[in-house]
Amino acid sequence: MTSTIVVSEGLLKRYTAKIFEHAGLSADHAAVVADALVWADLRGVDSHGVSRVGFYLNFIQKGVINKAPNLRVTHDTVAVQIMDADASAGAVAMGQAVERAVEKARAVGLGLVLVRATTHTGALGYYTQQLAQQGMIGIAYSASIPMMAYHGTRVAGVSTAPLSIAAPGALNEPIVLDMASSIVSMGQLNQAKLLNKVLAEGLALDAKGNPTTDPQQAAIPLPFAGPKGSGLALMFELITSLLVMNPLVSEFFSGKPGGRKHQQNACIIAIDAFRFCPEETFRSEVARTVATLKNLPAREENGDILMPGERGHRTATDRRQNGIPLSAEVAQELADFGQAAGLQKPW
Amino acid sequence: MTSTIVVSEGLLKRYTAKIFEHAGLSADHAAVVADALVWADLRGVDSHGVSRVGFYLNFIQKGVINKAPNLRVTHDTVAVQIMDADASAGAVAMGQAVERAVEKARAVGLGLVLVRATTHTGALGYYTQQLAQQGMIGIAYSASIPMMAYHGTRVAGVSTAPLSIAAPGALNEPIVLDMASSIVSMGQLNQAKLLNKVLAEGLALDAKGNPTTDPQQAAIPLPFAGPKGSGLALMFELITSLLVMNPLVSEFFSGKPGGRKHQQNACIIAIDAFRFCPEETFRSEVARTVATLKNLPAREENGDILMPGERGHRTATDRRQNGIPLSAEVAQELADFGQAAGLQKPW
Repeated sequence: MTSTIVVSEGLLKRYTAKIFEHAGLSADHAAVVADALVWADLRGVDSHGVSRVGFYLNFIQKGVINKAPNLRVTHDTVAVQIMDADASAGAVAMGQAVERAVEKARAVGLGLVLVRATTHTGALGYYTQQLAQQGMIGIAYSASIPMMAYHGTRVAGVSTAPLSIAAPGALNEPIVLDMASSIVSMGQLNQAKLLNKVLAEGLALDAKGNPTTDPQQAAIPLPFAGPKGSGLALMFELITSLLVMNPLVSEFFSGKPGGRKHQQNACIIAIDAFRFCPEETFRSEVARTVATLKNLPAREENGDILMPGERGHRTATDRRQNGIPLSAEVAQELADFGQAAGLQKPW
Repeated sequence: MTSTIVVSEGLLKRYTAKIFEHAGLSADHAAVVADALVWADLRGVDSHGVSRVGFYLNFIQKGVINKAPNLRVTHDTVAVQIMDADASAGAVAMGQAVERAVEKARAVGLGLVLVRATTHTGALGYYTQQLAQQGMIGIAYSASIPMMAYHGTRVAGVSTAPLSIAAPGALNEPIVLDMASSIVSMGQLNQAKLLNKVLAEGLALDAKGNPTTDPQQAAIPLPFAGPKGSGLALMFELITSLLVMNPLVSEFFSGKPGGRKHQQNACIIAIDAFRFCPEETFRSEVARTVATLKNLPAREENGDILMPGERGHRTATDRRQNGIPLSAEVAQELADFGQAAGLQKPW
């Protein structure tokens, strides 16, 4: 039996932030991390939401996430910045990267910020959506330690290489693509395990590297379109991790102490869209393109034709109004963390 | 029965260039277009090589490709340029875009050039590889008129959205990812048709929009990972075509005269890698990452573990030395074009 607890966005953010504050993050940083997690819950991406609080707390306790990071700019031009995140919580460094990328794009039309040695960056759509809301084309990608099979191998050799691209929408709501280069995410594999739902073929390998459809055996997600998905993941490693001189794949397999420590490198790109195309024109052309696709004959009768991020936006609209449903397990876990922090359960 | 004719790289380039010159391109432009096509042949991407000469000549005769384009810069900052290609042959505008992107990247670390209203850009790896050979991270993507199904629809609604990313390699040979967002390319569908080879499931729709594995019926390639592949294609339309104010998808379905005319918009990004990471470090870390992946246990015993572009590079090395094999059909076609141009067949 699973029941759900429904919590309002604001309350969940404040409660989550208080938990992180108690764990040692500054009030500012705690609020930023809570905001990023609850954004994912709002959009229905529960795998990247407050279900991760325990995972983050564990990192904070172990020092994997640095409670008081010293974010340093190591390279700076009018268009590019490299920022050493000093193992900050991902949302802290990425939030600053978004700000810097926008400043540069406002100045010269384009800004690129590379973030070195941060931790779990979460749902990248959170950042590109912020860029698009400021009139920018937003692009974000990141590299992490290996989780997905490299094509032709039987072990996790590359990250699942998330990529997000967002553009200002017809109205205020941007169009936000947010994808991984695996066919299904680790979160979806875990979900299938929980529900004991047989997987389609070609999605995952077991721990020994053999193809499996058994959700209990599935351990390693496979890249989409074979060499394409894992090639993309490798390129993200080369053009982020190697560029900021913090290789993750080769260190992971090096046998060195610390080589398998959780960390990520990431990149944020902002293009000042309305500098090149008048805002009104851009927005009306987005509307026209969307309408064109939605008017095409659907694959299945009355089937939905969705834009990137549309389902998430719908869910967010609903959850902003009606609250965010948390599974009993996640709610209990949060309540326990809250209690340990001397907080009263808010539901 | 098919036999092949083997031609040297240099000879094939010169002969192809002469054909384009006779069709009305300047000697410079003809050489550029021939170089791009023969590069694809060298790499074994025959679908983007001289087999396209007829397709290009047809475009030149119809005025779809402008023989004497007036390439104009419409926007320019230290980091960004928008260039109106005036329906130039793709390789002409893209070659200039590569040069400009490198100039900007040398100046401020990063350059982005948007190319408006060009024609078939060919294999994007040709351009990103040039960037990587100059010490740049190279990224290129393009948008064209619809060819691939948008997820959830039964018609071609978006382009196959090629994306290429290249990085300087351990030695001189860059690592070059060059992919489309369809599972298989139009070229591969045509190849299956020729060989009457049954397709795997989930690769294509027939002309009526129904899934098919019959190579003779397959008409519309499907995106990889459903909404991911077609979402990427839509985003490329928004962040290239709309940004340069030359929408392709909505115009295609608008019913307007000229709405279905062949054209493309594209983007080239250069990041000055060695400004941020010393060349020696970057190259040796690429070598270490590649060696790490190649040492992982292979999926199949003694199976190859390939890097992006590695097979193409091997083929190019072989073909540079031993010549480029052309099918009898392609050789005959070229000979016919050559004859019409008053050229002697070079084989």
